[in-house]
Amino acid sequence: MALFKKVGIVGIGLIGGSLGLAIKKYKIAQEVIGIVRRKKTIKEALRRKIVDIASRDLRLLKDVDLVILATPVSKIKEIAPSVSKVIKNDCILTDVGSTKKEIVLKLEKLFHNYIGSHPLAGSQNAGLTFADAKIFKDSLCILTPTKKTLPEVIKKITVFWNKMGAKVELLSPSLHDKILSYTSHLPHLVAFALMELIPSKYLNYSATGLRDTTRIALSLPELWRDIFISNRKEVLISLKDFGNKLYTLEKIISKKDVKSLYLFLKKAQRKRIKLL
Amino acid sequence: MALFKKVGIVGIGLIGGSLGLAIKKYKIAQEVIGIVRRKKTIKEALRRKIVDIASRDLRLLKDVDLVILATPVSKIKEIAPSVSKVIKNDCILTDVGSTKKEIVLKLEKLFHNYIGSHPLAGSQNAGLTFADAKIFKDSLCILTPTKKTLPEVIKKITVFWNKMGAKVELLSPSLHDKILSYTSHLPHLVAFALMELIPSKYLNYSATGLRDTTRIALSLPELWRDIFISNRKEVLISLKDFGNKLYTLEKIISKKDVKSLYLFLKKAQRKRIKLL
Repeated sequence: MALFKKVGIVGIGLIGGSLGLAIKKYKIAQEVIGIVRRKKTIKEALRRKIVDIASRDLRLLKDVDLVILATPVSKIKEIAPSVSKVIKNDCILTDVGSTKKEIVLKLEKLFHNYIGSHPLAGSQNAGLTFADAKIFKDSLCILTPTKKTLPEVIKKITVFWNKMGAKVELLSPSLHDKILSYTSHLPHLVAFALMELIPSKYLNYSATGLRDTTRIALSLPELWRDIFISNRKEVLISLKDFGNKLYTLEKIISKKDVKSLYLFLKKAQRKRIKLL
Repeated sequence: MALFKKVGIVGIGLIGGSLGLAIKKYKIAQEVIGIVRRKKTIKEALRRKIVDIASRDLRLLKDVDLVILATPVSKIKEIAPSVSKVIKNDCILTDVGSTKKEIVLKLEKLFHNYIGSHPLAGSQNAGLTFADAKIFKDSLCILTPTKKTLPEVIKKITVFWNKMGAKVELLSPSLHDKILSYTSHLPHLVAFALMELIPSKYLNYSATGLRDTTRIALSLPELWRDIFISNRKEVLISLKDFGNKLYTLEKIISKKDVKSLYLFLKKAQRKRIKLL
């Protein structure tokens, strides 16, 4: 038996579209409704059988059992009140936003059966074109319950992600935002800053090192602007921390302190090996 | 006819080993001599037919037509005087060091037929194990002639790299070091600093973004310590420049200046697209 009868996805981009494909592939729901703004996306979503019904009309969510808000971070907060007016009482709700504190605070006021999700999946390639059921396989999805979250909602949403091949871990919204500011938001800021800095005429003299280090600077500026602003408190802390590290390196190098420099690099390399 | 009769490679790691393989593959020389310190490397280089003769004895270079110094940056300066004592008068000499000003200054005093090379090839994987003739194919090799460099040496070393599939560009040693401090040394520093900063317990909560951004932090600390120190003047300038960019971002984010933030990210993304 399917986990849900009817699932609604609001926003059919890379993540929303991949969710539609994965829900069908793993038979997680009998029917998938896609709420999409653009006509072109409606057509494409239907053509690729990502959803069974695609429409701009939120009222189609009236009898779904699960709604996933998969729009960019700033749009999640905007659209949530309208969604809360049309769904039925026992409908479960989650979102896939990359920041959680601000979103969870707002959404748990609007929805009784809500839990925040953050699937660490996807890539710099935005949009439905790159939607793929497999992106969640062997990935990590962080759920961010609070004191208000109902245990059965945690359980059901955990099973939901597990069925798509994702491992689930629970973090509070605050801790999520703190950790991700280091492991995701800061690396994105750094990649964007590197590209912004390097003179265009120098770019011919680069190799795979620069390409890999700045791959995520290909990500959509609109999405990341919203993420940096939404999580600005933590982002500013990690940015300041990182600035201090660079200042440490600056001092070490200008003093030609080869021993400290070696130890710094070695410590970094050891930690990076853990990520292999 | 082969471009050289006999070639000597001093240092058989990733680049030196790959050169040996490429010289044989493209029949660039009739014989390849490898000068290696460790017994284990001597055995491995002979077993994989990377060189015809492998030895610690520099005197084997006495009748070679081309010597390539392929040791780490700091070792190039150390070993050059001994090499200059054994080679014949018309022997051409190059090195493959990642920094050039300091090395060229020293080496062109020692060698009449010298030009600096910097092949932008290779990866974070150091050592002979990863040697591969193909790493130079479609890569860029920067040559750094000075007023003292003989035209026929530029020509012959250009053909040498071309035969392995590399495109060649000429830059002065100073400009090379300035450009590479932005396109290679800074990204490496940033990757090492990110890894050094992020708490180990946070690393489980990361995705491919962090992995790619910090891949080059897997590089050998010994090699990069030497590069940062050798090119410290330019490295410190690019590091300071980068620190200022981060400070700009900090101000923009703390003011919630979404417009400036968007423009910053968009400019970065546009430049990154050029690298695709």
